[in-house]
Amino acid sequence: MARSLVPGSGEFENWKPAPKMAASYENESENRFNGNSFSIPFQEIPRFPKSDKRVNELISCKEPVIVTGSDLVGSASHWSLDYLAENIGDGTFNVYKSASRKFKYYSDKKMQAVHEFAPPTQLLEMRFQEFMKLIRSKTNTNSESEQQQGNSWGQLTSNLLLVGMPGNVTPVHYDEQENLFAQIRGSKRFLLFHPDQFENLYPYPVHHPHDRQSQVDLENPDYEQFPNVRNLHGYEGVVGPGDVLYIPMYWWHQVESCPDSEENISVNFWYMAGSVEKIEHPLSAQQKVAMSRNIEKMCLEALGDPSEVAPFMKMLVLGRYT
Amino acid sequence: MARSLVPGSGEFENWKPAPKMAASYENESENRFNGNSFSIPFQEIPRFPKSDKRVNELISCKEPVIVTGSDLVGSASHWSLDYLAENIGDGTFNVYKSASRKFKYYSDKKMQAVHEFAPPTQLLEMRFQEFMKLIRSKTNTNSESEQQQGNSWGQLTSNLLLVGMPGNVTPVHYDEQENLFAQIRGSKRFLLFHPDQFENLYPYPVHHPHDRQSQVDLENPDYEQFPNVRNLHGYEGVVGPGDVLYIPMYWWHQVESCPDSEENISVNFWYMAGSVEKIEHPLSAQQKVAMSRNIEKMCLEALGDPSEVAPFMKMLVLGRYT
Ligand SMILES: [Zn+2]
Ligand SMILES: [Zn+2]
Repeated sequence: MARSLVPGSGEFENWKPAPKMAASYENESENRFNGNSFSIPFQEIPRFPKSDKRVNELISCKEPVIVTGSDLVGSASHWSLDYLAENIGDGTFNVYKSASRKFKYYSDKKMQAVHEFAPPTQLLEMRFQEFMKLIRSKTNTNSESEQQQGNSWGQLTSNLLLVGMPGNVTPVHYDEQENLFAQIRGSKRFLLFHPDQFENLYPYPVHHPHDRQSQVDLENPDYEQFPNVRNLHGYEGVVGPGDVLYIPMYWWHQVESCPDSEENISVNFWYMAGSVEKIEHPLSAQQKVAMSRNIEKMCLEALGDPSEVAPFMKMLVLGRYT
Repeated sequence: MARSLVPGSGEFENWKPAPKMAASYENESENRFNGNSFSIPFQEIPRFPKSDKRVNELISCKEPVIVTGSDLVGSASHWSLDYLAENIGDGTFNVYKSASRKFKYYSDKKMQAVHEFAPPTQLLEMRFQEFMKLIRSKTNTNSESEQQQGNSWGQLTSNLLLVGMPGNVTPVHYDEQENLFAQIRGSKRFLLFHPDQFENLYPYPVHHPHDRQSQVDLENPDYEQFPNVRNLHGYEGVVGPGDVLYIPMYWWHQVESCPDSEENISVNFWYMAGSVEKIEHPLSAQQKVAMSRNIEKMCLEALGDPSEVAPFMKMLVLGRYT
């Protein structure tokens, strides 16, 4: 029975990160990349050259690490917007348009589960050439955009070429896969939070289109609605060209494109989790996240109606476990 | 998957209702049998002669009903304390002693799950003759007691001969079996609540020794801790000699021995639930109770430690489904 609630791996939804691009965005004061404007205590993400033995130690403990001088994407170091425009072909790409610099992922499949869900981004289709023209016109008027395109690289689950623009933010969320994030041009700031910060980050219900995303706006937290945000603590680090960041599965991350690097190019590699972890007590924070996801899915399946989940959960817990 | 969370039947714990007997109890003002001293709206439990076709209609709809003039325990009508003392044999019985007139069931097996659980009753062993002597001495000094003895009658799951004393209260709880309650001597007042009153009655966690009992003291509810008690509504009815009350599975019930009948004798018949109900949406309140019990059991099994269940439940629900 424990097995069904706490899988070591499996049970992932095969979401493809959404390729996206921002509409104009001109609020200078929100562009906080260079100062830590969060009232959240952060420690530095460990940073070691690829030959350092602590790299593998951290990865085997499922702790994040920035690996410097990696040649993981060495052949990509000459990629620029112009190079890509010439070499990426003339297929069309899904491009998401956002009214702000924030790109909050949502699941199309789950949209009908939430009444009157307003998608925060809008889907467009264009060729890379058109997209690049748009990027450059927007850049000239102080706006940002980002583009992501999925294809398949060897044995990986999926990977993603990200061509981002200054100031873009991917709000805090977790993924159900191991992630190697290789920076090629420009730099990006990462905020990471351990899976045990689940209760401080209030993820949306699993059936919500924003599943795996935090409900908390880290730049302007609502402490009344989400009081545990006061207990939040995490890691931060900046990755530049040649750096590779390991983001362990279920670790929360928020990503911001550095505003001073005009071209921002990254490659993301997602891997399925390794072999099933042995179940030992007490369970790890990761196993508890998997457990809560499974409970939420089972409840929705049994109740048959997303609108019945919240009343049921309240009945289960309020005044009984609170 | 729905199947595992919402069984139509099965998954019962084979608890034996505890035979019990009260120590002295002398607070006259708490003896509220004859007036409705509750601020809870009650309607009458339907009451029909056994030949009335509405009896079977109600039972097949799993609604409570008092059947009058039943000969279900006709041969028991001449049972009295003296008759039982002469005929019940000289085996020993488990007798529970309570410092009040209230007898709140608890599970021995679950006692280690709750730190410093103080059992509300104390276990003694005695022969029926001794017990009767004690009952009569206590009755003379305005105290109450109640005795229950389990044996096995035919194909039933279990049955119970209850020899109760005036004013005793079995606090509000639900059982995981269908129950026919036959009154032989004296009378008892029943308060019944539909299974959809779960959220208004705040049952203890499943791993708690008081599993299936409400945390709410109906005679003195703590509205701050249990605000939904304000929404509670139920049924009430009095059963006398020859009456049989059908208490459907998962229906909440509180039982009070009528203070004006010196000898109070009943026989309880518990049946396993019928064939597995078809699962149709929306689920019934009964199915949701079964679901919540299964979730609580799975969580305890997965977490491996009862003290981890409440923090996990809070993490799952607070700020996310509230
Ligand atoms: Zn991610
Ligand atoms: Zn009962």
